[in-house]
Amino acid sequence: MKSGTASTTWVYFIPAGDIPADLILSGESRLDRYLVQEVRRVRGEAPLMIRSGAGLIRIESASPIRFSGHRSEGSAGRFALRAVVQHLHYAGRSEWMNLKKIACPEPAASAKTAAVLVPVGKSAEWWKLSQDERQILFQKTIRHEGHLGIGRRYADRIFQRLYHARHIDPEAPYDFLAYFEFNEADAPDFRKMVSELRDIRTNPEWLYVDFEYEIWMKKVSTLTKPDP
Amino acid sequence: MKSGTASTTWVYFIPAGDIPADLILSGESRLDRYLVQEVRRVRGEAPLMIRSGAGLIRIESASPIRFSGHRSEGSAGRFALRAVVQHLHYAGRSEWMNLKKIACPEPAASAKTAAVLVPVGKSAEWWKLSQDERQILFQKTIRHEGHLGIGRRYADRIFQRLYHARHIDPEAPYDFLAYFEFNEADAPDFRKMVSELRDIRTNPEWLYVDFEYEIWMKKVSTLTKPDP
Repeated sequence: MKSGTASTTWVYFIPAGDIPADLILSGESRLDRYLVQEVRRVRGEAPLMIRSGAGLIRIESASPIRFSGHRSEGSAGRFALRAVVQHLHYAGRSEWMNLKKIACPEPAASAKTAAVLVPVGKSAEWWKLSQDERQILFQKTIRHEGHLGIGRRYADRIFQRLYHARHIDPEAPYDFLAYFEFNEADAPDFRKMVSELRDIRTNPEWLYVDFEYEIWMKKVSTLTKPDP
Repeated sequence: MKSGTASTTWVYFIPAGDIPADLILSGESRLDRYLVQEVRRVRGEAPLMIRSGAGLIRIESASPIRFSGHRSEGSAGRFALRAVVQHLHYAGRSEWMNLKKIACPEPAASAKTAAVLVPVGKSAEWWKLSQDERQILFQKTIRHEGHLGIGRRYADRIFQRLYHARHIDPEAPYDFLAYFEFNEADAPDFRKMVSELRDIRTNPEWLYVDFEYEIWMKKVSTLTKPDP
């Protein structure tokens, strides 16, 4: 592995109980447990295998993990959603520094900690756009606030993380796993934020979204080592 | 698989003779044969397993291929270099349209067709940069011609293709497989181009390159179906 990529974060969402017996979490890895409360289809036809009432586990790891026997979401059998944190694709340095100043840290697990996993797929048209064409759709302009501008207004109370799945899990019907956490009291604000992100007048980027689900969960606990 | 990503091109470079018996090339796939002539280390210490005199095969495919028993470059045993064509990360629409107008098509296989595969790895510092910081290093500015500007001057005679390996092959010591083809008479121009790309006064992006090899080959033949 390239030494320079040691800070990469791989993520896996797997059914609770499917933790591989030989999984060793290094100091940079972590494991969170969730209870799925609701699965809402927003756009797209491909079914998700995650059901409400199920237990789900997120593993973040500095190196990729192979789950033998796990299939991609959308296939038969057990599943593992997998993705990776990548470099910044649209945020500029000053935007990013400003965002980091105001953004809330990831909340601790608790009965009041809501987590929403949002698998998002974009159309072939999106991926044919050049960098400047995609960039302008993300940015604030005189015509629209854009994805970055909308997300920023909620960043002090809605924890946001983006994992990339495109080319990492080619069989998956999504390109990204957007992930959010917040105190359940802020759920109305989360709903407001996603409705603004889905309004093409404020965020024209959403014209190119052709797959989207919301998986509402409680973040029950966080472990640095898996259960024995 | 997302229907929207059907135009994706996956690439594999494998030893000649290692074509999987069950490989079926669809209409969108192709297979090229090469003879390796020289392997030149430019930067970085990780060894490459490719040796001069060896036969090499490139497979381009619309969907990913699993090569069972093949290890990543840098591991023991047989190898497969794997990567994928991604969307445009730095080129703007007008730059891209201008480039397409002047760029030569991929040359046909022949005894005079030179191909150079250039695995390139970038440092952790590169991947921590924001989009605007990386963009400025690629572009032509008052201070430098930049990667895009230099490549453009040679595009009418040097065929250029970029495959992305970062996060696709996490164990590989490179992030990209840059690929070039030209008539052997244009080899001096190719050498001139890469020397300009490696001059940080004309292309400061190269400050962030920490791994680079040149694999010089002849493109011997192109097949749309593998040998029986």
